[in-house]
Amino acid sequence: MLDLYFAPTPNGWKISIMLEECGLAYNVKPVNIGTGEQFAPDFLKISPNNRIPALVDHAPKSGEGPLSIFETGAILLYLAEKTGQFLPTDPGGRYGVIQWLMWQMGGLGPMLGQHGHFALYAPEKIPYAIDRYRRETERLYGVLDRQLADNEHVAGADYSIADMACFPWVQTYKRQGIDLAGNFPNVRRWYDALKERPELRRGMALGREALNRNPQEDAEARKHLFGLKD
Amino acid sequence: MLDLYFAPTPNGWKISIMLEECGLAYNVKPVNIGTGEQFAPDFLKISPNNRIPALVDHAPKSGEGPLSIFETGAILLYLAEKTGQFLPTDPGGRYGVIQWLMWQMGGLGPMLGQHGHFALYAPEKIPYAIDRYRRETERLYGVLDRQLADNEHVAGADYSIADMACFPWVQTYKRQGIDLAGNFPNVRRWYDALKERPELRRGMALGREALNRNPQEDAEARKHLFGLKD
Repeated sequence: MLDLYFAPTPNGWKISIMLEECGLAYNVKPVNIGTGEQFAPDFLKISPNNRIPALVDHAPKSGEGPLSIFETGAILLYLAEKTGQFLPTDPGGRYGVIQWLMWQMGGLGPMLGQHGHFALYAPEKIPYAIDRYRRETERLYGVLDRQLADNEHVAGADYSIADMACFPWVQTYKRQGIDLAGNFPNVRRWYDALKERPELRRGMALGREALNRNPQEDAEARKHLFGLKD
Repeated sequence: MLDLYFAPTPNGWKISIMLEECGLAYNVKPVNIGTGEQFAPDFLKISPNNRIPALVDHAPKSGEGPLSIFETGAILLYLAEKTGQFLPTDPGGRYGVIQWLMWQMGGLGPMLGQHGHFALYAPEKIPYAIDRYRRETERLYGVLDRQLADNEHVAGADYSIADMACFPWVQTYKRQGIDLAGNFPNVRRWYDALKERPELRRGMALGREALNRNPQEDAEARKHLFGLKD
């Protein structure tokens, strides 16, 4: 059995999408990041970076004892290799997917995160920082759009873990102020096609009922999320 | 033969360290990021995100034609799997390394990059942004220090690609204003041990002769590096 330590955020949804796509059974262990549950010592043992999501596989294929993994890129790769799905086995295809997965991990995720912070959540409006991350967000959408001009999916012809890593971050495009149809038509086409997948929709629906408000707009939550604990 | 598209930056050195550690022969293809060579169309084909480094393997083991890879995390994983070095084969060890590699890709690298930008290079001194990334940098050093309190290396007992990913970023600790010995003694111990490795030193030396000045301090370079092209 798999335990998914989860909160309804783009990073959390990456993994719920993959679990639904693979048809794996899993227990959801909600982690309330608004009240700081990610700092509990027991969670720290599983996720030393204090971040959700994390995965515990109680029955890995190797026959070892329970295996716990943090960082979404590592979890996606683990599940792809465990199930033999959504990651090609030929080297060209395999590293094609892995490089775009890394691009999401090192670029699209962190930079859209900074853009969201300065454009939407930061208590001060700082034009330099808003402009810096706005420009980088637009640049990254441009990279993705050029890639999707020549490829049906992020890493080539086939749907893969690279698509699952990018989708939940692109899903907030309206809040990011991105004109998808006007400026990034290939991303628009890809996005519209993916959101018809029932498995992806189930993954993206996980935990949404708890989102009666955005925790980043709550002052107590802000302390935990922005590291303002002291 | 391997071609390494390279500039002397922490991300470039990750790969030169690994190539030296593996004892692989490689051609260095310098990319002058200060004059915008990373935007040349030929380079874009290899590295669609316009970033160095990138690797082309003209003789992959699979017998396919040349394989090109961008994103340092993907290149490190590729070289580890190509050579069977610096990545354990048991699942616990393997994903232990991959999760810390992802932590460097998604956290330590991007956030220290933002800290460097606002603390050192940005034309305006913005206290909110300096404080935000200073705090995140200290938090990440704290995560690494706790991990290294219980482990000789970043992902456990053995030296791995996770160490090679982190080292070049930690190497700038003085410029980052980090008191390594005072606040992060386990990182200090790890850092001092690694820098005695001749292979790592050779990797870290690559391209240093060209660093007669820091390109980020040059106005022309700033345009290319900070995306201020228009």
